[in-house]
Amino acid sequence: MRIHEMTYRVPYADTDQMGVVYYANYLVYFERSRTEMLRDAGLPYSEIERRGYLLPVVEANLKYKASAHYDELLTFRSIVKEARGIRLVIASEVFRDGKLLVSGEVTMACADKNHKLTRIPAFMLETLNKY
Amino acid sequence: MRIHEMTYRVPYADTDQMGVVYYANYLVYFERSRTEMLRDAGLPYSEIERRGYLLPVVEANLKYKASAHYDELLTFRSIVKEARGIRLVIASEVFRDGKLLVSGEVTMACADKNHKLTRIPAFMLETLNKY
Amino acid sequence: MRIHEMTYRVPYADTDQMGVVYYANYLVYFERSRTEMLRDAGLPYSEIERRGYLLPVVEANLKYKASAHYDELLTFRSIVKEARGIRLVIASEVFRDGKLLVSGEVTMACADKNHKLTRIPAFMLETLNKY
Amino acid sequence: MRIHEMTYRVPYADTDQMGVVYYANYLVYFERSRTEMLRDAGLPYSEIERRGYLLPVVEANLKYKASAHYDELLTFRSIVKEARGIRLVIASEVFRDGKLLVSGEVTMACADKNHKLTRIPAFMLETLNKY
Repeated sequence: MRIHEMTYRVPYADTDQMGVVYYANYLVYFERSRTEMLRDAGLPYSEIERRGYLLPVVEANLKYKASAHYDELLTFRSIVKEARGIRLVIASEVFRDGKLLVSGEVTMACADKNHKLTRIPAFMLETLNKY
Repeated sequence: MRIHEMTYRVPYADTDQMGVVYYANYLVYFERSRTEMLRDAGLPYSEIERRGYLLPVVEANLKYKASAHYDELLTFRSIVKEARGIRLVIASEVFRDGKLLVSGEVTMACADKNHKLTRIPAFMLETLNKY
Repeated sequence: MRIHEMTYRVPYADTDQMGVVYYANYLVYFERSRTEMLRDAGLPYSEIERRGYLLPVVEANLKYKASAHYDELLTFRSIVKEARGIRLVIASEVFRDGKLLVSGEVTMACADKNHKLTRIPAFMLETLNKY
Repeated sequence: MRIHEMTYRVPYADTDQMGVVYYANYLVYFERSRTEMLRDAGLPYSEIERRGYLLPVVEANLKYKASAHYDELLTFRSIVKEARGIRLVIASEVFRDGKLLVSGEVTMACADKNHKLTRIPAFMLETLNKY
């Protein structure tokens, strides 16, 4: 199992009047994180779409332990937790200076261009199972 | 237990290139929904803040059953599922024409102005337990 | 010339740590406003797209005179300033209690499904010139 | 005059159903760009706020020449166009592979913590005029 890391600087746009990153933005952070993980694995999401597949999200869970703030440099980490049948689960974490702020899991279903559910194709499974 | 409903029109801003509402936006929808529920209960969130309390989110769960699209008129519903100690759980649902698209729960902790956790004050509990 | 108005409640999501609505959100407000104006004129934007046209934005200008805040009920107003050739200009304003907060203009070009510029079709011009 | 550059990868979150980056996001890109320019100049915006100043936006203009798409690696460039009295104008541009997609200017006013307009202080002017 490999873990992928990337960094991200919090813009003003992501904050709210409580002075912290607004809670919905972590789902955007998770998207950035798993996208870079997939690219790093040699399977860019844009390539998945070009080959006729979509990965709509069917479930998401987040635990908020501490807040991120404006201009902080965050670290995002993602791993593939499960890739089987039509189901792909990716776990993501957001850190600041080694401290875990938010963790969560996003479950996606594999679908074809017509949004019909379909088993994860071999070329994807192969790559995902390296993670 | 009372249920609060509001409607919302999907702008272009909320869609993504898959042609559906981007998954993080549902957490914004849940926020809109519980805000209107609280206002309807006679406890506007802005009033909660004026009285020195904050309700940071500590957990969120979403189940995505079907997609919403540009310009659709959605219905948001929220109920208080639990209000006890420092913990407030609100369940929210997004519908289109009576069809459930997305459901979820958001757990908040009650905090004072210094972001220190504190029991939900009596004036809030009273109102919340009507819901 | 007719003017269209709608109201909008500011969610936490739209604020930033300065305690005001983040400046980019006004372009989303302008979109909401002109969408409702077009619908009110009997020409929903979704209908424009169904008939094979797109209206990509080519220019936008905003003047920020005063700030909007969390939970305020804003009023959006839009009018068609120009509709000629390939060019459509819509002016929008954001008010709170009759006070002008932000005004601006968004210029769109008319394009076909292949994103090729094309003259605004008769069915659109007719409706737009009523505004 | 110095120019600052940074790169940015477009997430799904930034796209809309037209398959391009939604027009309001460029104001967020401009914010990211001028923030990194200020940091690079030795004047992080967070430092400006810590020293008791705010830079609320009073005007913004954007010209959209071509579209950005999902997963593209964009380059943002910013320069200080004017820094005088209470007024700071920063010009920003968004490129893909050397092609200019969007350009614009954002005018800010210098304000103190009480949101009262005030002349740009010497420590800021000195740094800004290097750009």
